[in-house]
Amino acid sequence: MIMPDGIHSQFREHSIAEFFKKNRQMLGFSGKIRSLTTIVHEYATNSLDACEEAGILPEISVQLEQLDNGHIRLTVEDNGPGLPKKLVGKALGQMLAGTKFNRYMQQRGQQGIGASGAGMFAQITTGKPVKFKTGTGDGKAFSADLKIDFKTNKPLLENEQDAETAYRGLRIQAEFAEVKYDRGDYSPLEYLKRTALANPHAQILFVEPTGERTLFPRASEVIPEKPREIQPHPLGITTNDLVEFAHASQERKLSSFFVNTFSRFSYGKVDELKAALPEISYEMPPDELRWEDAEKLVNAFRKLRWVSPETDALRPIGPPQIEKALKNIYNAEFMAVAERKPKVFRGGIPFMVEAALAYGGNAGRRKADGATEGDILRFANRVPLLFDAGGCAITDAVKGIDWRRYDIKDFENEPVAVFVNFVSVHVPYTGAGKQAISDEEEIVEEIRLAVMDAARDMQRYLHGKVREASREAKKKAILKYVAQLAQDLPELAGKGKPKEIEKRLLQMIENKYSQLTLEEAEEEAANGNGVKEEKPEGGNGDEEKEE
Amino acid sequence: MIMPDGIHSQFREHSIAEFFKKNRQMLGFSGKIRSLTTIVHEYATNSLDACEEAGILPEISVQLEQLDNGHIRLTVEDNGPGLPKKLVGKALGQMLAGTKFNRYMQQRGQQGIGASGAGMFAQITTGKPVKFKTGTGDGKAFSADLKIDFKTNKPLLENEQDAETAYRGLRIQAEFAEVKYDRGDYSPLEYLKRTALANPHAQILFVEPTGERTLFPRASEVIPEKPREIQPHPLGITTNDLVEFAHASQERKLSSFFVNTFSRFSYGKVDELKAALPEISYEMPPDELRWEDAEKLVNAFRKLRWVSPETDALRPIGPPQIEKALKNIYNAEFMAVAERKPKVFRGGIPFMVEAALAYGGNAGRRKADGATEGDILRFANRVPLLFDAGGCAITDAVKGIDWRRYDIKDFENEPVAVFVNFVSVHVPYTGAGKQAISDEEEIVEEIRLAVMDAARDMQRYLHGKVREASREAKKKAILKYVAQLAQDLPELAGKGKPKEIEKRLLQMIENKYSQLTLEEAEEEAANGNGVKEEKPEGGNGDEEKEE
Repeated sequence: MIMPDGIHSQFREHSIAEFFKKNRQMLGFSGKIRSLTTIVHEYATNSLDACEEAGILPEISVQLEQLDNGHIRLTVEDNGPGLPKKLVGKALGQMLAGTKFNRYMQQRGQQGIGASGAGMFAQITTGKPVKFKTGTGDGKAFSADLKIDFKTNKPLLENEQDAETAYRGLRIQAEFAEVKYDRGDYSPLEYLKRTALANPHAQILFVEPTGERTLFPRASEVIPEKPREIQPHPLGITTNDLVEFAHASQERKLSSFFVNTFSRFSYGKVDELKAALPEISYEMPPDELRWEDAEKLVNAFRKLRWVSPETDALRPIGPPQIEKALKNIYNAEFMAVAERKPKVFRGGIPFMVEAALAYGGNAGRRKADGATEGDILRFANRVPLLFDAGGCAITDAVKGIDWRRYDIKDFENEPVAVFVNFVSVHVPYTGAGKQAISDEEEIVEEIRLAVMDAARDMQRYLHGKVREASREAKKKAILKYVAQLAQDLPELAGKGKPKEIEKRLLQMIENKYSQLTLEEAEEEAANGNGVKEEKPEGGNGDEEKEE
Repeated sequence: MIMPDGIHSQFREHSIAEFFKKNRQMLGFSGKIRSLTTIVHEYATNSLDACEEAGILPEISVQLEQLDNGHIRLTVEDNGPGLPKKLVGKALGQMLAGTKFNRYMQQRGQQGIGASGAGMFAQITTGKPVKFKTGTGDGKAFSADLKIDFKTNKPLLENEQDAETAYRGLRIQAEFAEVKYDRGDYSPLEYLKRTALANPHAQILFVEPTGERTLFPRASEVIPEKPREIQPHPLGITTNDLVEFAHASQERKLSSFFVNTFSRFSYGKVDELKAALPEISYEMPPDELRWEDAEKLVNAFRKLRWVSPETDALRPIGPPQIEKALKNIYNAEFMAVAERKPKVFRGGIPFMVEAALAYGGNAGRRKADGATEGDILRFANRVPLLFDAGGCAITDAVKGIDWRRYDIKDFENEPVAVFVNFVSVHVPYTGAGKQAISDEEEIVEEIRLAVMDAARDMQRYLHGKVREASREAKKKAILKYVAQLAQDLPELAGKGKPKEIEKRLLQMIENKYSQLTLEEAEEEAANGNGVKEEKPEGGNGDEEKEE
């Protein structure tokens, strides 16, 4: 809503908190159902990130209560590492103030807006603070009520209390209006179900306003490897980045700044650079680097050969876990999982795509008329993306595939589910609400290829299914005439008994149509007997293009 | 890109400029083509807003030059009111610092981010400042080079120069890399073409990098009425708004604060409020209003009857201008324009929808295979929305219509164009890039109804067309037999001349199939002879639902 004092406010600088208060839909606060799911999403995401970074198997509980005044009260609690007293206010009540902002590391949250945004929404809809309690497990716990000063984007704490307890974790309680609970496709229930699907190492308890409890049990005791912060790759930086990094650097020489700041930058590379660009002094202090020279350097970087960016900081879910998870929810006739090698976008940001297909069983989305349509389950760093499907690189990529090539006549009308997890140290979301991935060309193409990898497997299955159906049809057609033929044959031949002939005919038909024909068997063999072909990197099979 | 000093930057608050630098895709800077169109969009939008507010018929020129170093240089110049020296830096180089942020007034820009975002993009891709010159027409002009200090989100001016000249307007020149010019559907050319379409009072000159000049001449000398700032309506505010407004108010009593702050709030209304909620002191200073009382007041507001929000601050394009514009570009067989009464969303924000349909001629979008598909031209406050179509309320609404009801068998494959302009004092964009309207229920429904209004007109036309086609087919079928019949009849009847009979037969057929049948004529009459039915507000015809 807008202040009525247009004139007085002329050219006051507004805070990021004021901006998102006015444009709350940009954070996902539009519509009562979506708003509630957004809140759950932000707090659950934070909890999972905190546990992962601390190497803790997450136990998270999310409880919703419907209050008499129409408000909904949310309580989220985790067994994570907790937050130290001096940081917790900023982490929960100051936008763009988190540790997350500047780290080049695979995380779910990455902007430092989410939790503060949820607190903001509590405050503007109910006027109530967010109550939190946190303990770091070393005997020190701290609780307080938190509000945000929107004008300054600063946290305001009240009722601060220290406690001596071994409590470890974070508990948040807040009250919201302009939200509504339902159990539909966009509800917190569906969100948490998908979160459990992509995070089999987490245990998640959800309590609905009715009191109904759903436990998503831990399906794997393996703690995902801790995420690791990586250095930027020389191919991924812009001139502006280079100037900023250089001016902020404490190194004494440009050469050591390069080696210590960037990934894959050795002194050998500095020598190559000197040869390519001798007019620059590599002994100068980095904070004296001028734009013109930085631009030359960036252009020179692009001409050198580099070892690819570090990709071992990427933490995919992994094919066995994906398969297990899909099996659980879909009980599908067929599944195929494809995991591709890491790639980079914007020249230096590593990412990878995991894709899977499920066909038949409960796969696909039920439509209002009872029919089933193709469904796309989108994830980014294991976070389910429920909203803004239309503007997402994953949707673009999946819809752009010519599914008829894979024996899916019409994606909109088949029992098929496509699962995609985009994994990266930086997810280029289209908006602060983090529900869709920007359609950068390299990303869309890589998702397409991953889904097509899985689709090729599925096609072999479907193709077999089609052949089987056609054999069945022929067999049935012939069977119709068996009885008549068994009657007529003895008459024509002048010998044999109808019963006996019928039996032998049936046997012949059974033999013919229950085995592969020679042709079919050869085809099957050529397809590799269901063994997945490993296409060489960059080979023709990889670049397969539609139309 | 990300600073490598993760540890050092822990919990530093980051500026909004840093946020959008890292997440530039959220401002529309993703992809080389889209980035260039976004830049043109931001500057052109600002120019049109400035002219409109000053009551000036806009003349805008946009020039792109391809430089040898691969950069593109943009020069935008307008004949607007110019910016005073002390504000120009903030307007062009500080995010969230414009006058636009807090005004409840129909404008194209509304966030105070756009122009600074474009400057940011110049700076991070080429390191070059934005050069500007501005004059307010009273003898004072000012020029400078502008950069943004991202850490503080403050403008930095260099080469400042005052000049004594009668120059009026604003001229901006900036250099960009990571952009590309083409002439496709998402190009600056298409963007400016659509801008001209929705702003017939503007003259726009566009010079492409090839030097080719396109002038979109002014099609109307009528300056749109100046936009007007309106007061918020009591039904549209939240408790939080009320508390903020009250605490910022200079009024001495709550009662006078109500009357002077809100639209439609008379002292009579204050009395009604007193009767409904007697426990509150209406004499207290507004800055003493507590949240609990504010919540009660907002709830009481919602129970009183109010005159609808002011809607005369809305500035639609108007049916005649829309029709003229569509005629120019499509040369369509048929057009229908619907303009609906203003409505409100979120309880108090006025908006209205203008919709039009064009059928045949050049309407629709050419596909790669030469076929034509239904096209949706989206506008918000006369600004063309080229991107993010998938996540926009307009797309949702149009795709949600059962087009078969309107004799459009398949929207994706017919030569039809839907034009929608969403008009409001506050457009709820889904993102800071301002390319899609949030799918709030009231908005989607109203767009649907507006498009359906126009579709009903079109249906009458198409229905007639189908009948005509069917008459033509019957006529042709019968004509085939005329010659033979004319030969045979004299023989059968024993009299008459073939030539004469043929002539009479042709006349009979012509009569039958070129006139309406009685049935058809009656149906036509029942449909109101093409006179548009005015459905009563809220009547059944208005609430027509699909499926």
